[in-house]
Amino acid sequence: VSPSPDHKELSRGFVVPIGGAEERAGAMSVLSRFVELCGGSDARLAIIPTASILPDTGDRYVEIFKEAGVGTAFSLAINDRADASDPLWLEMLDEADGIFITGGNQLRLSTILGGTEIAKSIRRLNAAGIHVAGTSAGAAIMPQHMIAGGVPGVLPQADGVNLAPGIGLTNTLLIDQHFSQRNRLGRLLTAISYNPFLIGVGIDEDTAMFIGPDQMGEVVGSGAVTIVDPAELSYTSMSEATKQDSLSLHNLKLHILSEGCRYDVNSRIPYPPEA
Amino acid sequence: VSPSPDHKELSRGFVVPIGGAEERAGAMSVLSRFVELCGGSDARLAIIPTASILPDTGDRYVEIFKEAGVGTAFSLAINDRADASDPLWLEMLDEADGIFITGGNQLRLSTILGGTEIAKSIRRLNAAGIHVAGTSAGAAIMPQHMIAGGVPGVLPQADGVNLAPGIGLTNTLLIDQHFSQRNRLGRLLTAISYNPFLIGVGIDEDTAMFIGPDQMGEVVGSGAVTIVDPAELSYTSMSEATKQDSLSLHNLKLHILSEGCRYDVNSRIPYPPEA
Repeated sequence: VSPSPDHKELSRGFVVPIGGAEERAGAMSVLSRFVELCGGSDARLAIIPTASILPDTGDRYVEIFKEAGVGTAFSLAINDRADASDPLWLEMLDEADGIFITGGNQLRLSTILGGTEIAKSIRRLNAAGIHVAGTSAGAAIMPQHMIAGGVPGVLPQADGVNLAPGIGLTNTLLIDQHFSQRNRLGRLLTAISYNPFLIGVGIDEDTAMFIGPDQMGEVVGSGAVTIVDPAELSYTSMSEATKQDSLSLHNLKLHILSEGCRYDVNSRIPYPPEA
Repeated sequence: VSPSPDHKELSRGFVVPIGGAEERAGAMSVLSRFVELCGGSDARLAIIPTASILPDTGDRYVEIFKEAGVGTAFSLAINDRADASDPLWLEMLDEADGIFITGGNQLRLSTILGGTEIAKSIRRLNAAGIHVAGTSAGAAIMPQHMIAGGVPGVLPQADGVNLAPGIGLTNTLLIDQHFSQRNRLGRLLTAISYNPFLIGVGIDEDTAMFIGPDQMGEVVGSGAVTIVDPAELSYTSMSEATKQDSLSLHNLKLHILSEGCRYDVNSRIPYPPEA
C-alpha cells in the first residue's frame, strides 16, 4: 500500500505546493481554490500542523478554512512519532477529502512523520484521489527529495543546500518556497545540480502550483513560480567544486510563471494563461 | 568615423567588462590579464576615471596598473563635457594600447561622455584594435544599451530597471555588474524582456569577461558570469504588466559560467574550460 510517486493514473489527487504566507483573510485566492477543488461546502479537510511548534496553528487553519468556505475542517494534533501512528488520527485522515500541511520547520515534518503510518496514508490517499496541499515547510516536504535548508543568494555554491527525504508525492520536482522573498535561486540551482534529473520549482509567497493528476500544474496567487529545468544541462563543475568555488552550469532552462500560466511536468513545457 | 558596434573584423580590440571590486593588489588576476593583453611592460594604458567623483580614482589606478606590470599608465581627468572634447585628452587617448574605464556612476559616464569626441574615439579605437576594459559603472556603459539603475531582487518586475544609451562597443549584450553580490538577476531579466534581442550578462565582483574580436568571451576571476539568453522566449507578459504584477517569461536559457568557461556571443553557445 505504498504506491510509487507520480503514479500516472488520472484518479490520483492534486498536489498543491504553496510558497508560504498565503492570504488568510479576504479573497484568499490560493486557499479558496483548494477548498473549491476539495468540494467546497461539502468538503472535509484534514489539517496537519506538525511542522509548527505553535500550539494553535492547527486551530487557526480550521478557522481560516471555514472562512474560506470549507464544509468541515479538523486538525490532527500530531506532535511526535507516537502520535503519527495513533489510530485516531489515521481514522480521521481517512475521512478527509483534502489534506493541508501547514508551515513551520520541514525537518519536524520529516523527522516526526517519516516512515510512519500517517506518512504512508498521505501517499496512499493522494494516489487514491485525495488532494494534498502544503504551505512553506508543508510544500518543501511534498517531493521525494526535500530542501531542508541552505544559504541564500542568486548563484549556486557547493554545500549550499541540505537535502533530506520528503514524503514522496512527486519524484520529478524539487520544491523551494518563500522563493524570491528569501532569495533562494542559488540553493535551488545547487540542489538540482546534485542530480539533474529533478526539475527545480521555486514558489513565491502567496502563490501555489495546482498540479493535477495529468501532471499539468497551474499557477495561482499573487507571486510567481520559477522553474529551473536542467534537462539539457551540458556542463557542470559541481563534482569538483569546493565551498569557495564559483560553479558553472551550462544550458539550464528558466521559466517564470505567473497566475494562470501552466507547466506540463511530463513534457516540461510552459503554457501562457488561457485567453 | 563612428563604426558600427560589433564590427565583425578580427582586427578590432577586446571588450572586457568587469563586475566591479576586482582585486587591486596581489595576484590581480583580472587586471593582470588585461595588462598582458595590452602588451604588458610595453603597454600604454589610458584610464578614464569620469564615473568617479573621487579626485584620486585615476591616480590610484595608475599605481595599481603599474603594480600589475603595465609599461605606462596615465589618467585622463575628464570631469565635464568640455574636458571630453579637449584635444589634449584626445591626443593622449590616441597614444594608448588599452583603455580602462573606472567605476563610479554610469550616468556620469553617459551624461559627460555621451556624444563627445572622447566617446567617438573610444568606439573608433576599439574598432581599430585597441582593447577596452571597464569595471562596475565602466562595464555597464560599454554596450549600446546600458542599465542605469533598477530594483534588486531575483524576479523581473515592470519598471524594475532604467535603461539609457551606452557607449556602444557591443549591440548584442546588456551588461550588469556587482551581479550576485547585489542580487540583480531581476533587473537583468526585466531589461532583456523589454526587447529580447539582447543577451543579458550579469558579472560578479572580481570577475570579467574577455570578449575577443571573434566574439568569444572568456571568464576570468573569482566569481561567475550569468548569461540569460531570451532567443527562444515563447511568452512574455511584460507588455501588459503594471508595477505590482508578477511577470511571466517562458523559455529563457540560463548559463552560469565560472573561470575558464567561454561563451560564443555569435552562436550563443557556452563552452567548458579547456582541459
